[in-house]
Order: sequence, then structure tokens, then C-alpha cells
Amino acid sequence: MVPPTIEWQDGKVRIIDQTRLPGELVFRIIEDYQDIAEAIKTLQVRGAPAIGIAGAFGVVMGIQNSMTTTYGEFLAELDGIIGVLRNTRPTAANLFWALERMRQVVLDNPKETVPRLKALLLEEAQRILEEDRATCRKIGENGAKLLEDGWTVLTHCNAGSLATADYGTALGVIYTARSQGKRIKVYVDETRPLLQGARLTAWELKQAGVEATLICDSAAAQVMQKRKVDCVLVGADRIAANGDVANKVGTYGLAMLAREHRIPFYVAAPVSTLDLSLGSGAEIPIEERSPEEVTEGFGQRTAPEGVRVYNPAFDITPARLITAIITENGTARPPYEFSLRALVGKRG
Amino acid sequence: MVPPTIEWQDGKVRIIDQTRLPGELVFRIIEDYQDIAEAIKTLQVRGAPAIGIAGAFGVVMGIQNSMTTTYGEFLAELDGIIGVLRNTRPTAANLFWALERMRQVVLDNPKETVPRLKALLLEEAQRILEEDRATCRKIGENGAKLLEDGWTVLTHCNAGSLATADYGTALGVIYTARSQGKRIKVYVDETRPLLQGARLTAWELKQAGVEATLICDSAAAQVMQKRKVDCVLVGADRIAANGDVANKVGTYGLAMLAREHRIPFYVAAPVSTLDLSLGSGAEIPIEERSPEEVTEGFGQRTAPEGVRVYNPAFDITPARLITAIITENGTARPPYEFSLRALVGKRG
Repeated sequence: MVPPTIEWQDGKVRIIDQTRLPGELVFRIIEDYQDIAEAIKTLQVRGAPAIGIAGAFGVVMGIQNSMTTTYGEFLAELDGIIGVLRNTRPTAANLFWALERMRQVVLDNPKETVPRLKALLLEEAQRILEEDRATCRKIGENGAKLLEDGWTVLTHCNAGSLATADYGTALGVIYTARSQGKRIKVYVDETRPLLQGARLTAWELKQAGVEATLICDSAAAQVMQKRKVDCVLVGADRIAANGDVANKVGTYGLAMLAREHRIPFYVAAPVSTLDLSLGSGAEIPIEERSPEEVTEGFGQRTAPEGVRVYNPAFDITPARLITAIITENGTARPPYEFSLRALVGKRG
Repeated sequence: MVPPTIEWQDGKVRIIDQTRLPGELVFRIIEDYQDIAEAIKTLQVRGAPAIGIAGAFGVVMGIQNSMTTTYGEFLAELDGIIGVLRNTRPTAANLFWALERMRQVVLDNPKETVPRLKALLLEEAQRILEEDRATCRKIGENGAKLLEDGWTVLTHCNAGSLATADYGTALGVIYTARSQGKRIKVYVDETRPLLQGARLTAWELKQAGVEATLICDSAAAQVMQKRKVDCVLVGADRIAANGDVANKVGTYGLAMLAREHRIPFYVAAPVSTLDLSLGSGAEIPIEERSPEEVTEGFGQRTAPEGVRVYNPAFDITPARLITAIITENGTARPPYEFSLRALVGKRG
């Protein structure tokens, strides 16, 4: 397995700089919340659960040297820090969820001193990280029930160790199934433009000894046509109350192709990815990223100068295309309006 | 518009080296049929019609300095040359069609002298090139009838000037519609692994002044979901008697997604792309290309060393997903078993 994607080390955060993989495994020590914000924006740390954790520790770093003495000043400073961290990436629910949890700690303790509030915030961030570890394990257990011995799974982007504090969501399901003795192989979509599949998923599956075959995203349809895969399994960045899923661009097409080929399509995500305040995926903001990710993503210009580019980082998969949503509290099936709500708050 | 992709110049062939686009417009003079074979293999010249033409001129170059004096020796040498050219790329029908036409010239003239046979072969190659120009124009006219003013077209790979001797098949349809005053915009799939969409189609549409938006292949589903395109229009590498189409990998997925979104899916190709000897697409050989196209396509390693890769260059789109097939002899609609056969031999 790979080293931890994100760790707290004596007032600093250590991350794997994922922009350097698979060429180099580079750790980066971050001491400042604005550098955390930058690391999230530039995808040095990415994956919905991992950016939630990074955001929580960003809050700790931002506030730990606060010179404020009153509760009101402390809360105001905290809100400024949270605002910076919030304005990094708009789609993944876990970031907002983690920042909200951090803020709630302070709201819940209006009588505490500033030093005590700082300590409580650090505890909460550490709790968020620890909970994510346990959550990954539960998702792995719940999801592994769906994978049969001998199956080949198609995955997209990276929903593994590099996206969480533990062994991942979608990939955690695969790791768990294998630990139970099931023989599981994986097809990995390279996942343009930033190649999280080729760079991250193929790399971490190799570290874990899982047989993986890399394909271009547009070969996935043919792989299904030739019956080379038994299911599709992906993570999620935000899930609306009706079960619509925002995930890495390309997920929607995969889900539709899977349905046409009668291949089950599974989503694995923690409950913190659910955003029950949104009725449907239409309300989920979709981040559009820079054209250069498409036109010069590899340090080399691969499209004519001045070309117009549309580069959405995510898409919305309608609930009707999703066979099941695997969470730490259990596996939801349609109709998701009911099944997802039932899972929230429940311990798995 | 762009300069000719392939030209005959006094015993030599001049091609645009398409591996250098869009960074540089580099012409290459080829003097030897083995270099033509290499240029086809390495995609310096690509696109089904263009490699047919390149193959025909390859035959001329291979045989032009032949020292044989008898018909039998000449034919044997010719077959050796054709064999080398044939063993370059297995999928596109036009290469085999052009080589067969060249061979037939010699078979049809067993009484001619070697110098005369050489002259006849040169004439035939030039005729193949000239016919391709006329064919593109006819395809353009026939296809333009299907495009409505104000439409946005999604295309994949490159079926334009750079794939033919004239302005292309799929892109020729767009150029013709625009010349008729129709306002047409284009979404261009970048087309991994070799980025023919980003490198070639975006480049040539820019030269032609067509408004084009580049997307990652996996964003196509979302573009359809958001009703940003009115039709999909692609070329073809081989079409079986039942209307199944081999084209650049990713085409099959696009066709299925188009049907699910009720968007017409059009294929534009010359009759020389039809292979009526094949009952269905299952009989079309699909070229698998080197893993390095996927793992180091940008001059930089983007996947871990030793990763397994599946890199099919083409896929098969079943006829049931195709709204119409546009040829120089007219536009075929289902059932293709009848409509395609009716077009062969007919003058459009």
C-alpha cells in the first residue's frame, strides 16, 4: 500500500504532492492555511474525502497562531480562514462538510478560551481524519459484498488511498474484496485531462499488487462491448438527495454505457459526500478548470494556440443510471430519495 | 484551408508530417516505398482515404526503378511491394482497395511493356488522388443537406483535409454547409491517445475559420446532456455490408450516447471505405497499437512503469446506432444491407 496521503505532524500538514506522481513520490510539508488552499486548487491534494481533511487541518493551521483574545474576534478570524479554504474547489461536498464541522466546534463552545478553542479545533480535525479511516474500512466491507470472485471492475479517476486518509472508497472496495480472497482485476480509465487514472490509480493498484489494465477513456465503451468488465465502480464528489452523483467528468457517459451493456454501476462514497440540501444534481455547481489542462497538460502544447476549450472537471450522473450507492452506513438502492436519507445518521 | 496532405512531385511524394502538428507545419519528401510504409505506420500520413492514396503512390515509387523486363517478373516485384504496403495498418479498407486497384491495372494489361505498365500505374495513382478530391466534394454536398443552419456538430478524430486529398469527409460536410451560408459550430473531441482532434481537427478548423471548441473525449456525454450539440458526424475506416462501422476508438461510445440523447449520428465516408465482403463489423480486424501511445504520448511518462495497457486504435459501431451513412454516391439509411449495396457502383 502507499504512504498516507495526508498527515498531521506537529502543527504542520504533510501531503503527497499528487501532481508529481507517478514519476516521483514527493512529500510536501505545509505550514500555512493559504498554502493548503493552493494545494487544493492545484490538485496536489485531491479526492473528495482528502480535501475535506486538508480543509480541516487548514483551519487548524490558519488559527493556531491567532493573536485574538475574545470569542467574537476568534470566530471572525476563523470565518475568514474558512472563507479562503471554501473558495478553492466548488463541487466536492466533503470540503464544505468538514469546514462546517470545524466551525460548529467553535459555535458549540462560546464559553471557552481561545487556547482551548484552538485545542478543540485540532481535536476535531484529527477526528475527521480518524473517522475517514474507519469510514473507508466500512465502505470497503459493505461494497465488497457486491463484488464476485473473478470479476473485473472498471474504474474512473482515483477514489483510492490517494483520495482519502485510508485505502479509499471505490478502490477500498476492491482492496477489501481481495483481502477476502476474491480474485479481482481492474480496468483503469486514464481520466483526461489530468490523468488521475493513469498517474494515481494505476500507480496505487500496482503498489497494492492488483492486476490493472490502463485504457484511454474512450476505449471504455469497447471494453464493455467485449464483455471484459463485470461492473463499473467509482467514487463521488457530491450526491444530491435524489441520488444524482457529481463525479469526475466522464462518469456520466460511463454510467449510461454501463446501463446499455447491462453492467452494474456502483458509486462508493462516505455519507459526508451526501448533500441532502440539494434536491437533484442540477443544483450541484460544476467546476470548470483552465483550458491549459487540456491543451498543454504535459508540458507540451497539443492543440493550436487560441483554440476555445470547454473543460468541466465533473459531470452529473442521474440516479436512474446508478445500481447502488455504497456508504459506510450501508448500501443504498433506488429509490434513493428514501434510501439515502435513511442512511444519514445511522451507524453502519 | 490547409495545403494538400499528400501530393505527387516528379517521382516523389510530398506529405504533411502530421505527427508535427499543430506545433509545426512540416512537409516531408518521400522517395522510397518503404518510407511510405513507415510513414503510414507512424501516422505521419493517416486518415483512411489519405493512406489509400499514399499506398497507391507507394506502389509507383516501389516499382518505378524496377529492372525487370518481363511481365511475370514485374508482377512478382509489384506483389512484393504491395505486400509491404499492405502490412502497415490493418483496419482501414481504403488502403487495401487502393492497392487492389493498382494491382488490377497490371492484371488488366498483360501484353504491355514494363515501361508502359509503370506509366499506367502512375496514371492510376494520380486518378485515385483526383477521384478522392471529387469524392470529398460530393460527400460534402450530400452531407450538407443534413445539417441545418445554426447547428453545432460534435466530431471525433480527424476526417478532414488532413485525412484526404481534398477537404475531407466529415469535415467536408461542415465546410460545404458553411459555404452554403449555414452557420455551423463544432465541438472537437481531443481523441486520445494521439490527439488527432486536438492536434489536427482543431488546427484545420481554425485555418478554415470555423468556430471550434475542444473537449476531452469523456466530456462528450455531458455536452450531449446539456443539449450543446445537434448531431454527431464522424468519418470511417471500414464499413461492413450490414452498416457496422470501424472508426477511431471512442466512436462506438459516442454513437450509443447520441442515441440515448436522441441526437442524430452520421458517418461520412467514400464508397472505397465499404467492404461488402464482410457481413458485419465483427469481421473487421481492429489494430492494437503500442502501449507507449497511452503511457508516454506527450514526451513524458504519465503512467507507472510496467503497467499493462489495452490500446485499440478503432472500435466497431453497430449499424443500429447510425442514423445515416453519407457517401459520394448518396446517403444510405437503414436497412444498410440494402441501401449500401445500392450505392456501390452508382455515380452520385
